[in-house]
Amino acid sequence: MDTNLRLEVCFSPALLHLYDISDTIVVVIDIFRATSSMVYGIENGAKAIIPVEKVEQCLTYKDKGYLLAAERNGSVVEGFDFGNSPFSYTSEKVKDQTIVLTTTNGTKAISYSAATAKEVVIGSFLNLNALCKWLEQQNSSVLLLCAGWKDNFNLEDTVFAGAVIDQLKDKFKVANDSAIAAYDMFTLAKNDLNLYLSKTSHGERLKKLNIEADIEFCLHQNIATAIPILRNGKLVAL
Amino acid sequence: MDTNLRLEVCFSPALLHLYDISDTIVVVIDIFRATSSMVYGIENGAKAIIPVEKVEQCLTYKDKGYLLAAERNGSVVEGFDFGNSPFSYTSEKVKDQTIVLTTTNGTKAISYSAATAKEVVIGSFLNLNALCKWLEQQNSSVLLLCAGWKDNFNLEDTVFAGAVIDQLKDKFKVANDSAIAAYDMFTLAKNDLNLYLSKTSHGERLKKLNIEADIEFCLHQNIATAIPILRNGKLVAL
Repeated sequence: MDTNLRLEVCFSPALLHLYDISDTIVVVIDIFRATSSMVYGIENGAKAIIPVEKVEQCLTYKDKGYLLAAERNGSVVEGFDFGNSPFSYTSEKVKDQTIVLTTTNGTKAISYSAATAKEVVIGSFLNLNALCKWLEQQNSSVLLLCAGWKDNFNLEDTVFAGAVIDQLKDKFKVANDSAIAAYDMFTLAKNDLNLYLSKTSHGERLKKLNIEADIEFCLHQNIATAIPILRNGKLVAL
Repeated sequence: MDTNLRLEVCFSPALLHLYDISDTIVVVIDIFRATSSMVYGIENGAKAIIPVEKVEQCLTYKDKGYLLAAERNGSVVEGFDFGNSPFSYTSEKVKDQTIVLTTTNGTKAISYSAATAKEVVIGSFLNLNALCKWLEQQNSSVLLLCAGWKDNFNLEDTVFAGAVIDQLKDKFKVANDSAIAAYDMFTLAKNDLNLYLSKTSHGERLKKLNIEADIEFCLHQNIATAIPILRNGKLVAL
């Protein structure tokens, strides 16, 4: 392994332009809940997930045999099959289906990266070990892109980035201050992720929406081995 | 004190547009070294410091009785009196002088905030206690704006933001995830700031420039009581 390979963290899609990602694998992270649900959906046999930025784009797929999923500000958009709760991505619901999904933060982060990155893959606590094992084998620099909340920094995506760094730090050059911070946040949080993240602004926001069960689910580690990867605008199993 | 007053942290001038600062005091932070030197200069009797974004703007003040200071990428720009080393801001050099200053990160953060903030003041470890005491008395929300490094997140500005939060957290609503992260980073760093920050990318960059003495100086706490405040485009003593 070439330890000159960079492992960096970007805290917001609004800062992505600061990174040259043309030769870099980008891991998109939106722990509560988009990328957790994407991993769970692909794990459960979804044929593909098509991430789109806008609700209107999602609607153009109506009545063509797709499941349509749209979330804004934590809630399912009216008229859609579902949003981004992981419990909507069980095998009963998604097996052999293609889902068209738009979310407040995650799908935007994907479309921003898709334009220039070497590869775009999806990370969550659900597939943490499988993802790290795969990244380690690619002989490529890696950027962990936190989707954040409406371009703001958030803790849960950062702590996950730190968890990846924890597994890969000896194999890569941990190259920027964001990565150092993410790793330090993970060391503070790792003994009780749920407790640590309960103080976040987003955790509070989600609690108001009565989706604590979703949050708890999204913090389960290594219950999936699927790694969704972007191919021709669709997330499919690697 | 109204504890609905917000105390927030913004990690980069490139994210400042996410905050409504019209009713907010903005504290600009560029620990290595712009805001440390500004505090030290005003403390040492400089009449004013005029922050400008560009080297060319700085040059328009030539031969008009000003001290001209310009730093880019850690070095003094050729042809200028000095850059942003705090040792250039001693009373022998700056007393009763007006300095026109442009730096890689700090002066840009100031000009971004100046457009809309209620007030813009300058923070550094040198004036930490005086600054916190003053902020506590203003009955206003506060945004701690980290200048970062070329719009990237950096640790030293974040840790300083955390030091301010440590003093003010019971008096304000610590309102965003960036603030929670900054406070946590400060708790990790506070017992040995120099050691903690020695691992930063910027610390390494500055070491290559042989300015370790500057770095050490910028981490001295409470050797100044001056709080530079922006008035009509000039930083003056509060």
